[in-house]
Amino acid sequence: LIGSVKITKFSGGVSLISCLNLPFLSPAAERLRYILGEDDDMPTPTLFTEMDTLQHEGDELEWKESARWVKFEEKVEEGGERWSKPHVSTLSLHSLFELRTCLQTGTVLLDLDGYSLPQIVGEIEEGMISPDLREKISFVLLRKHRHQTKKPIHRSFADMGKSSSSASELFFLLCCLPGHAQSRSMNDIADTPSTDQLKNKFMKKIPRDAEASNVLVGEVDFLTKPFVAFVRLAQATTLGGLTEVPVPTRFLFVLLGPQGKAKSYNEIGRAIATLMVDDLFSDVAYKARDREDLIAGIDEFLDEVIVLPPGEWDPKIRIEPPKKVPSAEKRLDMYPLGLMNGTAGGGGGLVEDEMPVPHELGEELAFTGRFCGGLFLDIKRKLPWLPSDFYEGFHIQSISAVLFIYLGCITNAITFGGLLGDATDNYQGVMESFLGTALAGTVFCLFSGQPLIILSSTGPILIFEKLLFEFSKNNGIDYMELRLWIGIHSCLQCFILVATDASYIIKYMTRFTEEGFSSLISFIFISDAIKKMVGAFKYYPINTDFKPDYVTAYKCECLAPDPKLMPSATLCNCQDMPLNVTGLDWSQLSKKECLKYGGSLVGKSCKYVPDLALMSFILFFGTYSMTVSLKKFKFSRYFPTKLRKLISDFSIFMSIMTFVGLDMLMGLKTPKLIVPTEFKPTRPDRGWLVMPFGKNPWWIYLASFVPALLVTILIFMDQQISAVIVNRKENKLKKGCGYHLDLFWVGVLMAACSFMGLPWYVAATVISIAHIDSLKMESESSAPGEQPQFLGVREQRLTGILVFVLTGVSIFLAPVLQFIPMPVLYGVFLYMGVASLSGIQFWDRIKLYMMPSKHQPDFSFLRHVPLRRVHLFTLVQITCLAVLWILKSTFLAIIFPVMILGLMGVRKMLDMVFSQHDLAWLDDLLPEKEKKKKEDDKKKGKDKKKAKPDDSEDEDKYHPYSNCSPSSESDVDRRYCVLKLHIPYKDLIYPSVAQSQWAAHCQATPRHRP
Amino acid sequence: LIGSVKITKFSGGVSLISCLNLPFLSPAAERLRYILGEDDDMPTPTLFTEMDTLQHEGDELEWKESARWVKFEEKVEEGGERWSKPHVSTLSLHSLFELRTCLQTGTVLLDLDGYSLPQIVGEIEEGMISPDLREKISFVLLRKHRHQTKKPIHRSFADMGKSSSSASELFFLLCCLPGHAQSRSMNDIADTPSTDQLKNKFMKKIPRDAEASNVLVGEVDFLTKPFVAFVRLAQATTLGGLTEVPVPTRFLFVLLGPQGKAKSYNEIGRAIATLMVDDLFSDVAYKARDREDLIAGIDEFLDEVIVLPPGEWDPKIRIEPPKKVPSAEKRLDMYPLGLMNGTAGGGGGLVEDEMPVPHELGEELAFTGRFCGGLFLDIKRKLPWLPSDFYEGFHIQSISAVLFIYLGCITNAITFGGLLGDATDNYQGVMESFLGTALAGTVFCLFSGQPLIILSSTGPILIFEKLLFEFSKNNGIDYMELRLWIGIHSCLQCFILVATDASYIIKYMTRFTEEGFSSLISFIFISDAIKKMVGAFKYYPINTDFKPDYVTAYKCECLAPDPKLMPSATLCNCQDMPLNVTGLDWSQLSKKECLKYGGSLVGKSCKYVPDLALMSFILFFGTYSMTVSLKKFKFSRYFPTKLRKLISDFSIFMSIMTFVGLDMLMGLKTPKLIVPTEFKPTRPDRGWLVMPFGKNPWWIYLASFVPALLVTILIFMDQQISAVIVNRKENKLKKGCGYHLDLFWVGVLMAACSFMGLPWYVAATVISIAHIDSLKMESESSAPGEQPQFLGVREQRLTGILVFVLTGVSIFLAPVLQFIPMPVLYGVFLYMGVASLSGIQFWDRIKLYMMPSKHQPDFSFLRHVPLRRVHLFTLVQITCLAVLWILKSTFLAIIFPVMILGLMGVRKMLDMVFSQHDLAWLDDLLPEKEKKKKEDDKKKGKDKKKAKPDDSEDEDKYHPYSNCSPSSESDVDRRYCVLKLHIPYKDLIYPSVAQSQWAAHCQATPRHRP
Repeated sequence: LIGSVKITKFSGGVSLISCLNLPFLSPAAERLRYILGEDDDMPTPTLFTEMDTLQHEGDELEWKESARWVKFEEKVEEGGERWSKPHVSTLSLHSLFELRTCLQTGTVLLDLDGYSLPQIVGEIEEGMISPDLREKISFVLLRKHRHQTKKPIHRSFADMGKSSSSASELFFLLCCLPGHAQSRSMNDIADTPSTDQLKNKFMKKIPRDAEASNVLVGEVDFLTKPFVAFVRLAQATTLGGLTEVPVPTRFLFVLLGPQGKAKSYNEIGRAIATLMVDDLFSDVAYKARDREDLIAGIDEFLDEVIVLPPGEWDPKIRIEPPKKVPSAEKRLDMYPLGLMNGTAGGGGGLVEDEMPVPHELGEELAFTGRFCGGLFLDIKRKLPWLPSDFYEGFHIQSISAVLFIYLGCITNAITFGGLLGDATDNYQGVMESFLGTALAGTVFCLFSGQPLIILSSTGPILIFEKLLFEFSKNNGIDYMELRLWIGIHSCLQCFILVATDASYIIKYMTRFTEEGFSSLISFIFISDAIKKMVGAFKYYPINTDFKPDYVTAYKCECLAPDPKLMPSATLCNCQDMPLNVTGLDWSQLSKKECLKYGGSLVGKSCKYVPDLALMSFILFFGTYSMTVSLKKFKFSRYFPTKLRKLISDFSIFMSIMTFVGLDMLMGLKTPKLIVPTEFKPTRPDRGWLVMPFGKNPWWIYLASFVPALLVTILIFMDQQISAVIVNRKENKLKKGCGYHLDLFWVGVLMAACSFMGLPWYVAATVISIAHIDSLKMESESSAPGEQPQFLGVREQRLTGILVFVLTGVSIFLAPVLQFIPMPVLYGVFLYMGVASLSGIQFWDRIKLYMMPSKHQPDFSFLRHVPLRRVHLFTLVQITCLAVLWILKSTFLAIIFPVMILGLMGVRKMLDMVFSQHDLAWLDDLLPEKEKKKKEDDKKKGKDKKKAKPDDSEDEDKYHPYSNCSPSSESDVDRRYCVLKLHIPYKDLIYPSVAQSQWAAHCQATPRHRP
Repeated sequence: LIGSVKITKFSGGVSLISCLNLPFLSPAAERLRYILGEDDDMPTPTLFTEMDTLQHEGDELEWKESARWVKFEEKVEEGGERWSKPHVSTLSLHSLFELRTCLQTGTVLLDLDGYSLPQIVGEIEEGMISPDLREKISFVLLRKHRHQTKKPIHRSFADMGKSSSSASELFFLLCCLPGHAQSRSMNDIADTPSTDQLKNKFMKKIPRDAEASNVLVGEVDFLTKPFVAFVRLAQATTLGGLTEVPVPTRFLFVLLGPQGKAKSYNEIGRAIATLMVDDLFSDVAYKARDREDLIAGIDEFLDEVIVLPPGEWDPKIRIEPPKKVPSAEKRLDMYPLGLMNGTAGGGGGLVEDEMPVPHELGEELAFTGRFCGGLFLDIKRKLPWLPSDFYEGFHIQSISAVLFIYLGCITNAITFGGLLGDATDNYQGVMESFLGTALAGTVFCLFSGQPLIILSSTGPILIFEKLLFEFSKNNGIDYMELRLWIGIHSCLQCFILVATDASYIIKYMTRFTEEGFSSLISFIFISDAIKKMVGAFKYYPINTDFKPDYVTAYKCECLAPDPKLMPSATLCNCQDMPLNVTGLDWSQLSKKECLKYGGSLVGKSCKYVPDLALMSFILFFGTYSMTVSLKKFKFSRYFPTKLRKLISDFSIFMSIMTFVGLDMLMGLKTPKLIVPTEFKPTRPDRGWLVMPFGKNPWWIYLASFVPALLVTILIFMDQQISAVIVNRKENKLKKGCGYHLDLFWVGVLMAACSFMGLPWYVAATVISIAHIDSLKMESESSAPGEQPQFLGVREQRLTGILVFVLTGVSIFLAPVLQFIPMPVLYGVFLYMGVASLSGIQFWDRIKLYMMPSKHQPDFSFLRHVPLRRVHLFTLVQITCLAVLWILKSTFLAIIFPVMILGLMGVRKMLDMVFSQHDLAWLDDLLPEKEKKKKEDDKKKGKDKKKAKPDDSEDEDKYHPYSNCSPSSESDVDRRYCVLKLHIPYKDLIYPSVAQSQWAAHCQATPRHRP
């Protein structure tokens, strides 16, 4: 029987020849289905595997730990006395076959009642005849275990003995090295964990419910044939110092053999250890009823194994653990046991990848058809999360997020405040900007549907205000009152949009539109930062002709004006001119004063300001590049992971601190952040409240409906696109979105701000993305070598609220904040713009233009869409962006939101240029197309089920949304028929007989599934 | 028989049980030994493998290329219509077994006389009975082949047809995309290569002698069982458009099967294709006599295969080709056929790495014992290379090397020239420095033993000159004459050292000393660059109190001195003071003039220089970081490899150009490179020749022997250590070294320079390393995916000569060179220092301090030496360096060479602290120790041979120099016995019988080798 099973499994090629003949499962697969199918509700514990090898330590024998596995292998570096990096266990095929034979012929004890090592050893040896041999084996198996944490002191002394000068050695050992690697041999007989075990820090890498499997391999001189035992204990038991950590042992594998084959034994030990940590095999090991179940487990393992050709790979290379490995569930689901074959070569093979998951906006954007239906659903959805929205904010990461976003916000508030002040003759200035940001932000973060969104002034609104102010001024209309009415109208319009579930149309916004919008915003950030920087060179002109030696030639003197040409005080608009102008000491006046009093500046150095421009550049560029470097530091090799993560999280803060420090050190008068210090409106002739009536004619109240419509479109688009970007599936948000609720609050704040004469606020894409990024959670990697997985975002309201409260408080923080040079903040701006570009597929595609195809990264869309189509698609996007950019730079900026609608139109036209297959990979499908295709697909699926399988290249087959369509299932069915068939031994030798009798049966019979 | 072979091979585990019983080879291994042993003198051609699959194109069938192999797999990206990156072929074990069965049961035709595809197809089908089937198969096999280079035009049109607007598509196709991927179906019947084939650029990636193997797999509806054929043609023949490149076909594998199993067929096709490009299997395929030989080849392949566990690896990942793969020779040598098993898991397994190759300085440094023996050997060794030393210099790379080193040299010449001028009161200035550098460098590069070494002034010599000048001045001795005599003595002493082969002692210089020396020099470079930069801030002080508004308060006026206090002209040492001092317009004077005429500068801005310091910093840091970034650009994904390499090679030049451009653009008066424009000594009172007699008393001529001794030691150490570093084994120099010859010429130049009053020159470590680095050659990667290998250095005299000729000519290049700002050159200095640190193991070890052990790179010494010993060793080195650094900063700098001797002493003492095993990994062994250990080892080896094998941990066993000792051979012997034995079938089923009878035999019998 043994021989026959083996042949069946490992001469699988035969199945090709006699494939269609025998439609039943191989016994191995059938066995596994049976035992694994039994009770899937109780998950088996994680296994920690330790391999010990028998070593001579002086004259004594002892077991020395040589490798361990949680998920990946860590080897004891023989000379290095340290753990290797976790790596993928590369095995030789041979050792696996040898292991298989070992289990076939050795002792297998399942569900042994063991309570101590001596008793277990006794049980193992039960079948042995020679008492002499039994005694010797017991002796060997009960030797002490030395784990890698410990290093015998006597050995160090021995080393020193070898080298004749021990004094210097001792000196170095005592003074220069941290006390590490102490030695203590332990008694294995104890059944309580030793202090050494308990102290082992490795324990935190092992899950709580873990059990241990111990592999003991070694060569002894008294055996002539190998002694093999595989033991599963009925209950996991702590067997003294057997394991390096206080984890109870469940499995024990012993291989003792004659001298001279240590390497071969080691390889077998590594093979069983690797098997024990395999998710599927460990399940089998827990549930096996007999020896044959274990063998079947190995056979299944071998079937799934991935093979590297010896000529293309150097076995000495340790393979780093991959980013992601297929989970046991996936392996079971995707390839129901025994269906795995023929797909293992997927990496290089012809197997298709998973299809892109279709763009899903979820039920949040479904059209309810009821009045305020969407709004009520939003509230219903978000309300249960409210408590957790607060307590989940208490985390160290929140601090760095708050700092980062706070700095972004005040920079924004100052920038836009300054610009708005210019544009509206200080009706809205920095003070209003701070107050408005704090008010709107806090309210929004408290009550909105998506508290991760950060509100801010945006460019289009700035332009609108500018045009509106000019219009009012030229036509003698009161600006603040007009603005209030526009705000009221716009607020009502927002309410109408909310009540009618109008956010529904966001569904038509695909990746194409989103990316276009967010790239544009990023470019604006980048170009603004650079413009500001270039501005510094204009504001502080450098005297390029300066010759150090001719310093005597440079001065700037204030000359009194010619008394004859002296302007009368009425012409001069300086109210506080001193009475005795003529009595002034002109040479003592500052530049401003001089000009104020009508003096003229004469001299070569008047136009120039030394050092400040260059210093600003150094601060700007330094902040940017230090932030980038520190962000990357997370991936460096230096320092422990936690410290690196901390540095990376606080990179912006650290860069700002560094360059603020540098600036203070230099002491130059670089332009600093100016925060208003008194709580009063920027313009003294306005109050904190705007009255709705009295200054403008009545018809203005109605006519303001029209400009309000423009504002509404602007706000709606800006807000909702940012929301879609924030709610992207990649961010793995769990608490749902609230488009309608968000819009509602934006409307409310619109009106409120209008009444108080504050700027209007809307979602800011770049800062919101930065907010999300700074709150990303990663799994703490449990098993050594496992990559941390992105888990989601810390969704809460606390960071947002804190940011805006801080912004409000900033008015009182002026003494501290005034040390921050503006160029440093521009550097942060630049970083934000660049960082928000990096996550965008469009940007990745632009980079492809510059890469020869052989160097291009392995993007999944490149595997499926011809490069020239990808390039074409990117080119369309670039063109659209260029057009938008040009429009934005003209007065047309005010219809910016309409341009986004234009983008959606372009996307619609792309349906005519690109096939739906290509678009599914490069973009998402538009809703109606998607629907239609799905229907088509269903039909096709049905057709296919009826029709005979057809593998010719059919484009539709690869449509992403056909992911779980019947056609792919039937694929599995077919493979199943092809590859996993039990062939009696005689067929193997005479493969030509009886080949067609089962053919019809296989195609007609449905799959066997327990 | 078939079954039995299989069992033997793939139930290898049995060998464990019955290991020692059967000392003869498995039939597979024996077969291979026989056929591969036949005629190893004629190498088999490289195979290019192409796999085509059968596809429906519209209603027609055609063969479509789906993957190709030169060494690694490149797959046609199905949707992407492009080639994937080359990757390691990951196979499933299953497909390999299926392939094995295919070859067992299918048609195998070896040495078929084929001249055209139809004829070959006819031959294949000979055995078939049904003429109907024959016709159908012929029809399928003779379908057209479509290769990946071509894309059918009608398909593009079809795509457009699907999307309704073809006009826009056409527009984009015509105007925006490069004309790529043309389509032409070909006629396969032609026996001359088509133009498409000839035009294929991929041809250059395939070796000239290559032959093709074609794999054709597909499913057809008329077959009920698979049709398999493996054909080897007697002569490689071009079979029309079968292959994408005009390479004649030698092998043909056909697999046609029933519908529904395309994936399985594809995997089998990939398996045979991977086998065909395997070095060993392709040998077998060429030499196989029958079907069984091929099967044996597969079996051997399976035996060497590396297995990845399914739970630890995602089969979807494409594995990048490794840096290096074991060559076929190595695989054959290291594991004589059939001995490979049990070592495949080496990556993670317990197999030891190769040992470090012992430090070998070669016969160049052997003590000849004859007068001038070493010198004559050097000349004899170098003379034959003389012609190639010139013609090998003609390469594009030389240009960048010359530019790079030239800039380094003139920077050095100017820096040291300036410093020497200061130190010697202009007896030696910039002019002398240029002239001396050019003269000494040219002569040395023309005649020396190691023309890659660059001569330069060095720090220690500078200090010596300074002290000497002060001594002469204080004691009224003529400096130039004293210096001449020291030079003469030193030259003679060098000759004595050359004649006595004294360079022999360099042997005692291990990595420890070398690294200490070169790190020190690198640190000096780095610290000098930074010091110079900091100096700029002192030289151009920044006015940190400057307030832009108070620009009027800043001026610097020259006030006439108080006439009463006016110094008389005799006290003032300004000879050219104008006669009418009182008549001067003081306000028109420059700063210098003002001070010269005794005026005083008054004003707030007198002390300050605006902008220059910050601009200098930007230039300095910009040059450095741009060079670093451009150097790294070689490893980026952008642009074709050649362009990237060019950018990387010229990175320094490009950075210099960029920042020179920036500087010119800004127009600031940053300090520029000052090159002397007139050919005359710096000091007008000296000539170009120094007379040996007349100015000093006679005993000075003799007494100068003592300081000369110091200079000699200095020169000897500096020169020879740099030479050892340049001649490092890692640089793979092929033309041998010439320590004695080098020293001879340094001595000659010493005397020559002394006579002309020029500075003394000696090898400059950092610039020499930079020279080597800029001349490194890499293999052009032939097979896609293969990594380029470092081949060696372009060893020639041309670059060096050009550098120094250019340096000489620089005196006339002043108008161009004067645009280069000094900070840019300091940036280059900084880069040189940092870059020369990066190759040093010491530096790698310092970095280890900051890395948690799990992140440490996989250095081989870390696998063998405990981390704390590594740290201790590094600490000793750091301490030594710190002491050297402190000494260097004092007047003791003059005994710098003696300190290097001190380093050698410390190294000697380390022998007492560290075991020889650790030192062998971390450093090299000192000669006598090495000798002794070798002898010890021989003895031990002999002992071991006699003793029974012992695998307990024995430190000596891992000694690197025991690499090929008998003990390791006996290891192989043992493994051989263990793992590769033929077990009759009955033993498999009844493994317990007959186990001890052969035991004694195996241990006693010598290895079987044909």
